[in-house]
Amino acid sequence: MSDHKTPAGVFWYGGDYNPEQWPPEIWEEDMRLLKLAHINTLTLNVFSWAGLQPEEDRYDFSELDRMMDLAERHGMQVVLATSTGAHPAWMARKYPDILRTDENGIRRQFGARHNSCPNSPAYRKFAPQLSGKLAERYGKSGIVSAWHISNEFGGMCFCDNCAAAFRRWLKEKYKTLDELNRCWYTAFWGHTFYDWEEIVVPDLRSEMLPDGRSTFQTISLDYRRFMSDSLLECCRLEADAIRAEAPGIPVTTNMMGFYPTLDYRKWADTLDVISWDAYPAWDEPAARTSMTHDLMRSIAKKPFLLMEQTPSAQNWQPYNTLKRPGVMRLQSYEAVAHGADSVMFFQMRQSRGNCEKLHGAVISHAATEHERVFREVQALGEELERIGSKIKGAVSRPQAAVLFDWENWWAMQLSSGPSIDLDVLKETERWYRAFFDLNIPVDLIGPHDDLTPYRLVAAPLQYMADERFAASVQSFTEQGGTFAAGCFSGMADEHDLIVTGGYPGYLRKVLGLWVEEYDVLPPGQENAFSYHDKRCPARIICGIAHTEGAESLASFENDFYAGSPAVTRNRIGKGRAYYVSAVSDDDFYQAFIRDLCRESGITPLLEPVPGLEVTAREKGGRTFLFLLNHNDSERSVTIPFTGSELLSDHAVCSGDTLTLPPYGVGILETGL
Amino acid sequence: MSDHKTPAGVFWYGGDYNPEQWPPEIWEEDMRLLKLAHINTLTLNVFSWAGLQPEEDRYDFSELDRMMDLAERHGMQVVLATSTGAHPAWMARKYPDILRTDENGIRRQFGARHNSCPNSPAYRKFAPQLSGKLAERYGKSGIVSAWHISNEFGGMCFCDNCAAAFRRWLKEKYKTLDELNRCWYTAFWGHTFYDWEEIVVPDLRSEMLPDGRSTFQTISLDYRRFMSDSLLECCRLEADAIRAEAPGIPVTTNMMGFYPTLDYRKWADTLDVISWDAYPAWDEPAARTSMTHDLMRSIAKKPFLLMEQTPSAQNWQPYNTLKRPGVMRLQSYEAVAHGADSVMFFQMRQSRGNCEKLHGAVISHAATEHERVFREVQALGEELERIGSKIKGAVSRPQAAVLFDWENWWAMQLSSGPSIDLDVLKETERWYRAFFDLNIPVDLIGPHDDLTPYRLVAAPLQYMADERFAASVQSFTEQGGTFAAGCFSGMADEHDLIVTGGYPGYLRKVLGLWVEEYDVLPPGQENAFSYHDKRCPARIICGIAHTEGAESLASFENDFYAGSPAVTRNRIGKGRAYYVSAVSDDDFYQAFIRDLCRESGITPLLEPVPGLEVTAREKGGRTFLFLLNHNDSERSVTIPFTGSELLSDHAVCSGDTLTLPPYGVGILETGL
Amino acid sequence: MSDHKTPAGVFWYGGDYNPEQWPPEIWEEDMRLLKLAHINTLTLNVFSWAGLQPEEDRYDFSELDRMMDLAERHGMQVVLATSTGAHPAWMARKYPDILRTDENGIRRQFGARHNSCPNSPAYRKFAPQLSGKLAERYGKSGIVSAWHISNEFGGMCFCDNCAAAFRRWLKEKYKTLDELNRCWYTAFWGHTFYDWEEIVVPDLRSEMLPDGRSTFQTISLDYRRFMSDSLLECCRLEADAIRAEAPGIPVTTNMMGFYPTLDYRKWADTLDVISWDAYPAWDEPAARTSMTHDLMRSIAKKPFLLMEQTPSAQNWQPYNTLKRPGVMRLQSYEAVAHGADSVMFFQMRQSRGNCEKLHGAVISHAATEHERVFREVQALGEELERIGSKIKGAVSRPQAAVLFDWENWWAMQLSSGPSIDLDVLKETERWYRAFFDLNIPVDLIGPHDDLTPYRLVAAPLQYMADERFAASVQSFTEQGGTFAAGCFSGMADEHDLIVTGGYPGYLRKVLGLWVEEYDVLPPGQENAFSYHDKRCPARIICGIAHTEGAESLASFENDFYAGSPAVTRNRIGKGRAYYVSAVSDDDFYQAFIRDLCRESGITPLLEPVPGLEVTAREKGGRTFLFLLNHNDSERSVTIPFTGSELLSDHAVCSGDTLTLPPYGVGILETGL
Repeated sequence: MSDHKTPAGVFWYGGDYNPEQWPPEIWEEDMRLLKLAHINTLTLNVFSWAGLQPEEDRYDFSELDRMMDLAERHGMQVVLATSTGAHPAWMARKYPDILRTDENGIRRQFGARHNSCPNSPAYRKFAPQLSGKLAERYGKSGIVSAWHISNEFGGMCFCDNCAAAFRRWLKEKYKTLDELNRCWYTAFWGHTFYDWEEIVVPDLRSEMLPDGRSTFQTISLDYRRFMSDSLLECCRLEADAIRAEAPGIPVTTNMMGFYPTLDYRKWADTLDVISWDAYPAWDEPAARTSMTHDLMRSIAKKPFLLMEQTPSAQNWQPYNTLKRPGVMRLQSYEAVAHGADSVMFFQMRQSRGNCEKLHGAVISHAATEHERVFREVQALGEELERIGSKIKGAVSRPQAAVLFDWENWWAMQLSSGPSIDLDVLKETERWYRAFFDLNIPVDLIGPHDDLTPYRLVAAPLQYMADERFAASVQSFTEQGGTFAAGCFSGMADEHDLIVTGGYPGYLRKVLGLWVEEYDVLPPGQENAFSYHDKRCPARIICGIAHTEGAESLASFENDFYAGSPAVTRNRIGKGRAYYVSAVSDDDFYQAFIRDLCRESGITPLLEPVPGLEVTAREKGGRTFLFLLNHNDSERSVTIPFTGSELLSDHAVCSGDTLTLPPYGVGILETGL
Repeated sequence: MSDHKTPAGVFWYGGDYNPEQWPPEIWEEDMRLLKLAHINTLTLNVFSWAGLQPEEDRYDFSELDRMMDLAERHGMQVVLATSTGAHPAWMARKYPDILRTDENGIRRQFGARHNSCPNSPAYRKFAPQLSGKLAERYGKSGIVSAWHISNEFGGMCFCDNCAAAFRRWLKEKYKTLDELNRCWYTAFWGHTFYDWEEIVVPDLRSEMLPDGRSTFQTISLDYRRFMSDSLLECCRLEADAIRAEAPGIPVTTNMMGFYPTLDYRKWADTLDVISWDAYPAWDEPAARTSMTHDLMRSIAKKPFLLMEQTPSAQNWQPYNTLKRPGVMRLQSYEAVAHGADSVMFFQMRQSRGNCEKLHGAVISHAATEHERVFREVQALGEELERIGSKIKGAVSRPQAAVLFDWENWWAMQLSSGPSIDLDVLKETERWYRAFFDLNIPVDLIGPHDDLTPYRLVAAPLQYMADERFAASVQSFTEQGGTFAAGCFSGMADEHDLIVTGGYPGYLRKVLGLWVEEYDVLPPGQENAFSYHDKRCPARIICGIAHTEGAESLASFENDFYAGSPAVTRNRIGKGRAYYVSAVSDDDFYQAFIRDLCRESGITPLLEPVPGLEVTAREKGGRTFLFLLNHNDSERSVTIPFTGSELLSDHAVCSGDTLTLPPYGVGILETGL
Repeated sequence: MSDHKTPAGVFWYGGDYNPEQWPPEIWEEDMRLLKLAHINTLTLNVFSWAGLQPEEDRYDFSELDRMMDLAERHGMQVVLATSTGAHPAWMARKYPDILRTDENGIRRQFGARHNSCPNSPAYRKFAPQLSGKLAERYGKSGIVSAWHISNEFGGMCFCDNCAAAFRRWLKEKYKTLDELNRCWYTAFWGHTFYDWEEIVVPDLRSEMLPDGRSTFQTISLDYRRFMSDSLLECCRLEADAIRAEAPGIPVTTNMMGFYPTLDYRKWADTLDVISWDAYPAWDEPAARTSMTHDLMRSIAKKPFLLMEQTPSAQNWQPYNTLKRPGVMRLQSYEAVAHGADSVMFFQMRQSRGNCEKLHGAVISHAATEHERVFREVQALGEELERIGSKIKGAVSRPQAAVLFDWENWWAMQLSSGPSIDLDVLKETERWYRAFFDLNIPVDLIGPHDDLTPYRLVAAPLQYMADERFAASVQSFTEQGGTFAAGCFSGMADEHDLIVTGGYPGYLRKVLGLWVEEYDVLPPGQENAFSYHDKRCPARIICGIAHTEGAESLASFENDFYAGSPAVTRNRIGKGRAYYVSAVSDDDFYQAFIRDLCRESGITPLLEPVPGLEVTAREKGGRTFLFLLNHNDSERSVTIPFTGSELLSDHAVCSGDTLTLPPYGVGILETGL
């Protein structure tokens, strides 16, 4: 056991290190540079399966032993990966069932990564076996702070093993073919199944359309669920093997935010800690990045780990622009501001070859400490070493929540109609941005999450809204909560079957209206409505509604549905339920959300300053207010309380002005 | 035998009804609503194969019996579909030859619809077998007004069964390999075939290019012919089985207008009545819809059926905009105006699940009569019940014809060069629009159709023009007809081999000129010519011609072929033949066609008013003049004769003004 | 032996003739027309394999005998093709291994051309066998002036035979798996290979990305090399078979300029003469066409053959615009100006069918001598007959060279990052255009070519720069040469492994600077620098550099690297090395190259006139200066020496003005 072990309270700073790509003489120099940069955590062993298991019956841990020894000698804690994110070439040759089959039914060959079929018997045997051996060997080393299962799980497979597993999954879910035929609505297009074996995977050879939509959404939606579950099962098999050998060390896998094919909310139970890799493109708005951090924290229901980010440039974007000076620090604190208890990088030393060779790293190809990027990493390391433990473990307690649910996203992605411009993620971001711009923190929750912690719950485009969700909203509003739904919400149940009897289905009662029809506006066309005397555009889709108890707050101005309500409010018990029957612009959503917050008694953390993001975390009776200047020029704010600024370690008084330089960060600490 | 049977003279009003998607308690409520809406015709059994034949040796007609009984009890006539538009899942599993193979050689799995290989032995056995049984069981029910074979036949297959059938088809066509080698011009690129078995299908693995063009047009063109014939043969096998059991009831299949892969003109002989499904996108110009109706009527050579349209929205367009109030009625009358003897919808009740769940229906998901769309359907039903029988059976007798031929379309689609902007359908529409805007009705005919009923025949882009067609044009013009051809006409013979000796090949004599070269103008470049002192653009392609008897009516202004003729007229016998040696704009075509009509003694039905379409049908010595206001504001016309307005049942006198509201319709009846 | 044999000094004028597509009666008429047009050379037998070898064990040369006899009787020399550019249908059926497999692993069927797998045992047996038989039969005919192997070699295959051959090729290259694992950097993503058989082809099923990039560039780069070598080996097998039977007749194959998948520089050794097919699109700038001619001449290191061009229109472009009058002559002389010793066309007589039927020809579908295109061909033929032999064999001796290397091009194409806008060919063209506009001839050389013949060597984007190249540049500059490199040069070694220790790697010393980082500028963003008081944009990519001996000639103006050098000069021995640390615009490159030329003592051939291209060839102490007016209006130049104008056969004196009509050509002859 090493006495170098990083104390529990230390803020994790580090990232992926792949010494197997380098001769041993480099390793010691790397440690010198990483210590200089205040790195305390190394993610090891991410892609070493081929090295660890050179043959089916032979394992070779000698190189990993040396790496672990290196880490220990230099006082680094280790996030130990299981290496199963890419299988060995020999395994692909010997057990071709491990290779995935694409949506054209074409089986892959060995290559790339994320390449194992999740229902491959070979993969399900060898991957947990390796994880177990790693846990057995290194679980008691004292330097493993977390297990990192596989790497960026993702993708889909359509092979015969997956088809067979899909049928087993369906049997488990539906029990009888009659029930499956009912829930899949197979009377449509003569799809009735008489034998489980008749069911095939919904790929481009069957139900999938070239644009990713589906002709049979009920089947395709279940396949998405099944595929997410299949990968989750692989993750769980490894987690089980690890926990059996090394109980007590947290297990994670690195997620990817709004990743399209995995229902991460369902994954959260299997993992001890949520971690994710943040790779905003050069033109990604800060609100999108923040929303993704909020999603990750919300599914964790506690602080999370920032597992990867680039210190400088990425390589797989069309344009891999450098993060300007200060931006890496700003984005690191943005993660922390939203709940991260670590700042970690991909990677420690830049590769010489293959597709990530142009991806930035702490130690560049030049490999000196005399570089801008290294200096910025070093400075941030020094800073986090100083202040990180104060923040670590602090929690976020938003009073508002925005719904985001993978199944709902999938259902709209698979849908044929009403408009290719109507996208769950875009609508979620539109509503989120209003909260963001108003300095009002939010959680991103699922429809079956508990609503009672919140005063305000917004459902930007909750197309799928089953009875259980409707009941939850009913109860939430009756008890004083404010609920707001966007257009095209409430259409379908959990099977993606339309709820008949009038839109918005099970939400009709709580919203107090009936939407008779939906009109679709092609690009360039818009309707309008006035909200508080301000003219707002109505775009993409307009619901033509009749109030049934709700009051109309704004009406459409044009077309044959001029006069029909565009924004409504329904009073229920002590609360209210709003409906926005169109897609509008940022100005509208900001005004609308501001009103809802005011009505719900939710106040901004600070008065909004454009481009200056504000979030809060709490711990031990103290509040940490993060101020993040995303502008390339300075901004000032008046501080409304007395406390201290953590980074400068200066006391502040109410009324003081805090000036943040371009891309600058401030952390104000005060009592709750 | 039911005495509810719809009298022969009743105008058909109804559409697809899929009660198998609903529990029986819904059925009676549906009948109540449909009767309210004046529906008299139900298309049943479109996608029930899986239900009708749950196993290879077992048929179950119990549910269809109940549906038929329901229809009969409610006095509905039935268009009875054969359900073969989608095969059962068990059949795909047991007889995989029924599954299609795509242009990459990848065999499909069970899924979607239109999924049967037309040369599958299993399909060719089971589909007619089912049709025969249906005819046997329901042919004498007295309520079947028409048989509806399969559904929207279409698509292609490239499997081994198709390859073998293609070789048989070729043997039948060419008799000897020598003849095939000659007509396919296989000396090019060393393609000589010495054995029939060497011939493979022209897919992406052989002659097809990724953009759909071909390296070997002769082969690809024959494959299009063969594939259209293969599907037609499937249709014919079902029709034969039906006629054997239930003679005397008309047989149809629902077509799709300018559907790219089926030569519908060739199909017309097999069917007793032509029917089609009209799904204009929100931005489709009225001229395009009208042109499609004209095509369907022209191949029928008599009135046709509008088998499907949406009452409100579609679902598979990128933007599924609602039909504005009045537009469904307007488009229904547009169909009638061009020869439809029915107005039918897809569908009666909106599905709950899968890809058509967002497609509009007469009975919506809300399922009440208190909806705009329902009320519009109801009002139209009332109207058609009142006036439909007067119009039913009335015929159209255009004096002008525009050529449109699938083989010619295919040949240009497959062609490598001269310009990707030169498209048969676009050019056809360009010329058609001139007639449309001038209120001059036209037929859309094939090159081997009889030209003698017409005074004017236009060939917008008749690239393929064989000797037979040229002789027909020669005789037509000699006897006084006016013929006009667009640029790039007359290039190739029936094998898509260029006619040597000078363009435009066999048309050189009748047009009285020789085109030495074709210049291609990329986007943004244009030449010009003056027609009646008006400057007209020349775009896309310009023929550089020398007159050989023709006179030049307009010359190119620019470039090295300045002065060469752009528009020519050749006098032949009592007639004339025109050539337009470029692509121009709407103003030109309208002026040009106006001149040709004047010269041919063809007068507009009414003086043109922009956006106000006028067509005529005749019956029993009476003319029905349809006035269709496609504008969203009212339009007035002066009535030039005495008669009556059918919809209002008012008498009108010559000189009266008829004012049509936005999207309004008028039907003037008068003596011939 | 014929006494019609074209004398060695005669300038070749002719092209592809495919009489097998025509009945014999046409052949004699063709000869009449071709003689009229002064054609003296026919390329025969390009696509006749199916005719020559109708069965595996039977050859039939009767038709080719007749063709050869025809040529001989009419005094034509023959470029005799081997017909192996498209295999017979029977061969594909009998030996399916001859069919290629695409990047999805899908095996093609018989069809199109370029269709043989280069590692097919059947192809490698039958193709050289046929070539040998042709050489045996016609090698001594006296009229074969060159052998034309196959036709436009190209494309790739990913079949199992290719995979096995790839593994053999790799064993030959790397000897051991350890060395392969090292050079392929397989520690990345756990790709270590333990058995040669584990290696698969890098297609879409393994390492290839849908956009053509690669996840494992080291493997993909080797596959490109291997595939180019495989096709070269096929070419060599045919060449060997021919040379064994018919020594002394030059062997060629028709290349395609900047063809993406063949490393033509490596092919040059196998061929006796380089020939290529020039098909500029209607909007290709003259500089691009000239650059391609220069590439072909540079790899030949002597005059080359223009094997194909169209006299009028192409067919496979999106827009197949006619060459304006004079342009075919101008482009023919452009080829000659850059080193062509022939002017040849595809094709002599226009085909009637299939994908080239709309491609222009000397004898059109009308087949008369009374056509513009024919007359232009005839006039040029007359002219070349008069002056061609004077120019034939004259060489080009540029004092400047621009680097262009296929491996470097591939490496950037395969690269993931830094910017999709950074393209080797575009950057090469950008620099080339400066030389072109300045009337300074250049060679296009590879990094391992001898630099000593040049005063100035430019490397626009030499991403791959190994030690050998760096040493060559070092020595070149020390001895007085001027070297200039563009941004992102010097990154990687010959294995596409980044050279560590600081960019630009092995070039760091000679350029005298260190590039710390590269910033990428998305479209619409730019930085700037001032060069000689002129503000120049910096786009796409900017290197942030520190001089290490070099002097900064211009600095970036904006962003966090404002002030860092944009253009540098390092003095080394008697020479200099420049670096341009961004992508700029034409004005900059012209100013910069002008300065470099001035400094290097390189003077323009003539003072530049926009759109008037000038090149030189030398022979027997005489210089031929080609003046090519690419403008559509006339241009005049003052002649700086005394000599004669070859085309007009007029003497010229220094100070005379030569006026060239639109698209006009002048050839000035003078002493060296």
